[in-house]
Amino acid sequence: MSLVVVGSVAYDGVTTPAGKVDRMLGGACTYIALSASYFTKTEIVAVVGDDFAQEDTDLLAAHGIGLDGLERVAGKSFFWAGVYSADMNDRETLTTDLNVFATFDPKLSASQKQQPYLMLGNIQPALQKTVRDQMTSLSLVGGDTMNFWINDFRGELLETLKGWNFLLINDSEAKLLSGESNLKKAAAAVRALGPKLLVIKRGEYGATLFHEHGFFSVPGYLLHGLKDPTGAGDCFAGGFIGYLASRGVNAETASHQDLAKAVVYGSVMGSFCCEEFGVDRFRTLTRDDIEARFEEFRQFTAF
Amino acid sequence: MSLVVVGSVAYDGVTTPAGKVDRMLGGACTYIALSASYFTKTEIVAVVGDDFAQEDTDLLAAHGIGLDGLERVAGKSFFWAGVYSADMNDRETLTTDLNVFATFDPKLSASQKQQPYLMLGNIQPALQKTVRDQMTSLSLVGGDTMNFWINDFRGELLETLKGWNFLLINDSEAKLLSGESNLKKAAAAVRALGPKLLVIKRGEYGATLFHEHGFFSVPGYLLHGLKDPTGAGDCFAGGFIGYLASRGVNAETASHQDLAKAVVYGSVMGSFCCEEFGVDRFRTLTRDDIEARFEEFRQFTAF
Repeated sequence: MSLVVVGSVAYDGVTTPAGKVDRMLGGACTYIALSASYFTKTEIVAVVGDDFAQEDTDLLAAHGIGLDGLERVAGKSFFWAGVYSADMNDRETLTTDLNVFATFDPKLSASQKQQPYLMLGNIQPALQKTVRDQMTSLSLVGGDTMNFWINDFRGELLETLKGWNFLLINDSEAKLLSGESNLKKAAAAVRALGPKLLVIKRGEYGATLFHEHGFFSVPGYLLHGLKDPTGAGDCFAGGFIGYLASRGVNAETASHQDLAKAVVYGSVMGSFCCEEFGVDRFRTLTRDDIEARFEEFRQFTAF
Repeated sequence: MSLVVVGSVAYDGVTTPAGKVDRMLGGACTYIALSASYFTKTEIVAVVGDDFAQEDTDLLAAHGIGLDGLERVAGKSFFWAGVYSADMNDRETLTTDLNVFATFDPKLSASQKQQPYLMLGNIQPALQKTVRDQMTSLSLVGGDTMNFWINDFRGELLETLKGWNFLLINDSEAKLLSGESNLKKAAAAVRALGPKLLVIKRGEYGATLFHEHGFFSVPGYLLHGLKDPTGAGDCFAGGFIGYLASRGVNAETASHQDLAKAVVYGSVMGSFCCEEFGVDRFRTLTRDDIEARFEEFRQFTAF
């Protein structure tokens, strides 16, 4: 019983007010899987080039992440570079070299197709649909998308969303996808497209989950120091689906309480991600650290 | 035992994406007092011109607000007009006619000087200090300020803040006042200036309170429809101090639980304010409505 994560495994170059790293492990699939691995058995489906370093494979393996679906092909791994604004709420892309990711064609093994949980990182919607359609025993499936797909691949995206139980996007994407500027109305419109569970991420301000019986909001964690927000949204997704998978819930049985806790665990994982560059925080993070921060969330939100 | 509120009572002209009103009752003191009046006995110290309408006096009186300190002088009342951006997170001032407010010199009666609670609306810091220095039996005192005073009257403002128990400002003001871009560090720096209780308002994203033993965050209320955000921050302040006054707390005895609930009541009052233009929501709002929304906050934040 595993969570399958599909998406990019990449190298990133990141500049933030806190520093600069020319090349480090990154990619949505990487962040989601590392985060989810603290909660549930996780395996990835991704492609890398022959430049993919052994130490990066080792980091994933050390977290117990199943790597049978990590395809290696001749060429270079996906490379992205960007620079963040002073408040780190915005970023500018400097380089996007798709490399071997340009022809990514996710191949699922017979075993992977039977897994109950599927998280689709931010890739082309039609590819996300192809993967989802191969799964035979899903309890819960969902994913992420972005402005580019919403604007230029809307038809494909709408078809894809019909098959999802949950969608994680940020507030500007929710407004773009729905055409509604009011968040509550935007959420209702997006949920009508398919995903009955909608998590709207609001960066440093927290997140809000909308479901059939209501909604849940959690404020953001106040970091002492923010080094690099890259991957925070993906780590949120990993904590969210990882916790739900650990509880064994499905789209119908997930309670408000389960979902609310999943949003808090997502927030916890996103907050840890920002404390170091790239995936560095996951080199030392323990499940005890996660539980301690979960309790912090309870303390600073209870009244 | 009353709360004394000092600040502007004015007329506003407001344009938002939801509509336009050329002239309506407004002013920080008005909003704070109307909001606080649902929690505690409230009286105002303010000045209006001879154009101040009887129906506006009647509205304040109908909320049990003490008007002995509402000075009437020859001339026109303070008038402000502005237009909001499409998402209503920003606004542009079109007109600021100080009129009789230009020479506002708050005069407190012997009775007012002995009241235990004082809330200073956003006026010149030296005036705020004059008022505060006249009070002889304060349990809790604080107020609001803005970018203009932080930038151009910093010395006066710093002197004023030394005498306050609480300060309510928004996040950009907290960063401006402290010179710190990290909210947690900004909060620590601002608290070191005097006000040990600091509420940082984050508009639609909620609010965070910092105090000696920790902090408390509440997400924003998701409105079905936002008509006019004018006065929302002042209504927040009114709910915050009004609730604390109703509990009879002072700066030393206020518990985390008291303060957290005060922040939620503040959020509740701010959310109601936005539902109609100007003070219109307070024409029909009941204490039961307030309690019902307070429970909503509990439901959508508990996990």
